[in-house]
Amino acid sequence: MAKHTADSLGGAVLIRGTGLLGTSIGLGLSKAGAQVYLSDPSPSAQAVAVDIGAGAPLGEATTDPAVVVIAAPPDVCAAEIADALQRYPNAVVLDIASIKVALLEDLQKRVAAGELTAEQLSRYIGCHPMAGRERSGPVAARGELFTSMPWVICRRADVQEAAVNAALEIAHTLGASVSYMDTADHDASVALISHLPQIAASLVASRLQDTRPESLALAGNGLRDVTRIAASDPSLWVQILSGNAPRIVEILYGVREDLNRLINTMENPTGPGARLDIAQLMSEGNTGHARIPGKHGAPPQAFTKVTVIVDDTPGQIAALLADIGRIGINVEDLRMEHSAGHQVGMVEVAVVPGVRDTLIESLTEIGWKVVQ
Amino acid sequence: MAKHTADSLGGAVLIRGTGLLGTSIGLGLSKAGAQVYLSDPSPSAQAVAVDIGAGAPLGEATTDPAVVVIAAPPDVCAAEIADALQRYPNAVVLDIASIKVALLEDLQKRVAAGELTAEQLSRYIGCHPMAGRERSGPVAARGELFTSMPWVICRRADVQEAAVNAALEIAHTLGASVSYMDTADHDASVALISHLPQIAASLVASRLQDTRPESLALAGNGLRDVTRIAASDPSLWVQILSGNAPRIVEILYGVREDLNRLINTMENPTGPGARLDIAQLMSEGNTGHARIPGKHGAPPQAFTKVTVIVDDTPGQIAALLADIGRIGINVEDLRMEHSAGHQVGMVEVAVVPGVRDTLIESLTEIGWKVVQ
Repeated sequence: MAKHTADSLGGAVLIRGTGLLGTSIGLGLSKAGAQVYLSDPSPSAQAVAVDIGAGAPLGEATTDPAVVVIAAPPDVCAAEIADALQRYPNAVVLDIASIKVALLEDLQKRVAAGELTAEQLSRYIGCHPMAGRERSGPVAARGELFTSMPWVICRRADVQEAAVNAALEIAHTLGASVSYMDTADHDASVALISHLPQIAASLVASRLQDTRPESLALAGNGLRDVTRIAASDPSLWVQILSGNAPRIVEILYGVREDLNRLINTMENPTGPGARLDIAQLMSEGNTGHARIPGKHGAPPQAFTKVTVIVDDTPGQIAALLADIGRIGINVEDLRMEHSAGHQVGMVEVAVVPGVRDTLIESLTEIGWKVVQ
Repeated sequence: MAKHTADSLGGAVLIRGTGLLGTSIGLGLSKAGAQVYLSDPSPSAQAVAVDIGAGAPLGEATTDPAVVVIAAPPDVCAAEIADALQRYPNAVVLDIASIKVALLEDLQKRVAAGELTAEQLSRYIGCHPMAGRERSGPVAARGELFTSMPWVICRRADVQEAAVNAALEIAHTLGASVSYMDTADHDASVALISHLPQIAASLVASRLQDTRPESLALAGNGLRDVTRIAASDPSLWVQILSGNAPRIVEILYGVREDLNRLINTMENPTGPGARLDIAQLMSEGNTGHARIPGKHGAPPQAFTKVTVIVDDTPGQIAALLADIGRIGINVEDLRMEHSAGHQVGMVEVAVVPGVRDTLIESLTEIGWKVVQ
């Protein structure tokens, strides 16, 4: 990956909003040599971000910023963008909210109402860095947060090329992987690949509220995987889901249709065609799943899995992976099997299919118990 | 874990069905010293199981088995159990199918019809070893498949104590972790913790069938986790879902109610109470998710996560884990971050909260880039 510095930003960067993402951007840009200023409505959040080296407080700025990054919650993003476009007449303004259509519509309304000019709006470019984590706030921020993660730039016909270039420069400086997408396509895409899984996880997890502990004790990786993101922050997701509601609801109609068909079938599971109906849903799931790209953009399911039994003591997995490294094989993915109450575990290692037999043979020779 | 041998089974074990699970049981019991016989309607499946050491072909049996394990597909299980109970008047007969109510009802109907006697049925004990894998067939079988995995024994008032003991002995010999459950409770439990997640994964994955590749390229771990089990075998799942339909459909009614509420809300996302409705679904998901037990039966979410950046080259993760092992900290779980097209990755390591700061400090000192 080419190393980027912040030389070509053409001036200072102001980051408005010093939560997890804003502070992480500040840290990354500061490390790359950019002059970064920070502001946040919460003085303590701003102070923490300054203290950990994400930038200087805005009060110290002697000139106007060349780029303003709006890292505010979705709900206040449009007002923040409009304010920055007016306040800094020469700056590129970009935001990093995870939904874009409603935001742009809000800004376009402000143009129609004469509150913003078309020139001002042409300096705004929407971005969506697809990075995040379970913790929030500036304390959790790290400059490497965006390394290798997708960063969508939402190009528009009315946006200045300088704005696109500034967004590209910032994304590259942070080590992110840029793709371009139309605003509407972006929101439709995230409705499907991000918002729908979130809703499904919450719907399934919600059913567990009154389950007896004995039943939950049987939970395996299937339930854990499907519900993992159900632990997400409700207040953020309320803003995302309501902000992207028109795109999401279209997808939910399709889910409801499938669910109704399945319920009708399962109310009479021995009726004519019932099994075919169930098989069809399952096989449609197979088809959809197979389309998700693999790691490194490799074809889906390009890796084969080998399961090894390990004691659950410090260093065991390390020893296993060290042995695999010595054999000269790259681990493409790794999962630990969970089951409650056990001191012996299984580790599932994904490798390219060509090395599978070598791996199994070599590990077995060294004394590892290989399940597959 | 106490080591078990097969001494106390009181005779030979016949395994009917040499797929993945039957053959794995044969391998495990044979290794523990039991006399195992195998039979399968497919001569080639039986031959493979014999060849890899899971047992001898049934034709060589000189005496009746003490235990018969029915490892047949759900659809033919009841007939197989009934046949074994009649054919071997002194044997305990157990099955390992993942649903139990329909099976028992079928057997009870045979008693009512005079086809089986109550004495015969009292020698039947239902088991559900919760182990499996993505590959199937005897070639994928391993004797260690059940190590530390849950093994449910479905006790009934009318079952002989000898049958329960034989099931317990087999489960212990295979290293599984036994729990007892009423037949109806078992099926209601798996409907919720296994069948519902499978349906949700298939419903979400099904929506991806016509998605453009550019959208799928943005897929993150959320989508991957939620849809992972959507790759499961349709023909097996048709049998499971239709066999447990009455329990599953009750749960799906609740899901449909939540989904309808959400759709109504999202059709008018700025209406009164809309945000509260969405927040409520999200927070119910939080509550349900928090009830899933952690590894080793630890309280849910008992682990804290530390993310480290690694190059995607052989040995990197091993080196990281070796360093963590040297620091003396046990890795409770490990996940690799996926994103398409990148050669640098993130590894998320779960540890007990008390060691988090030590881990971050020590790793940073050694030169690892710690994100959290």
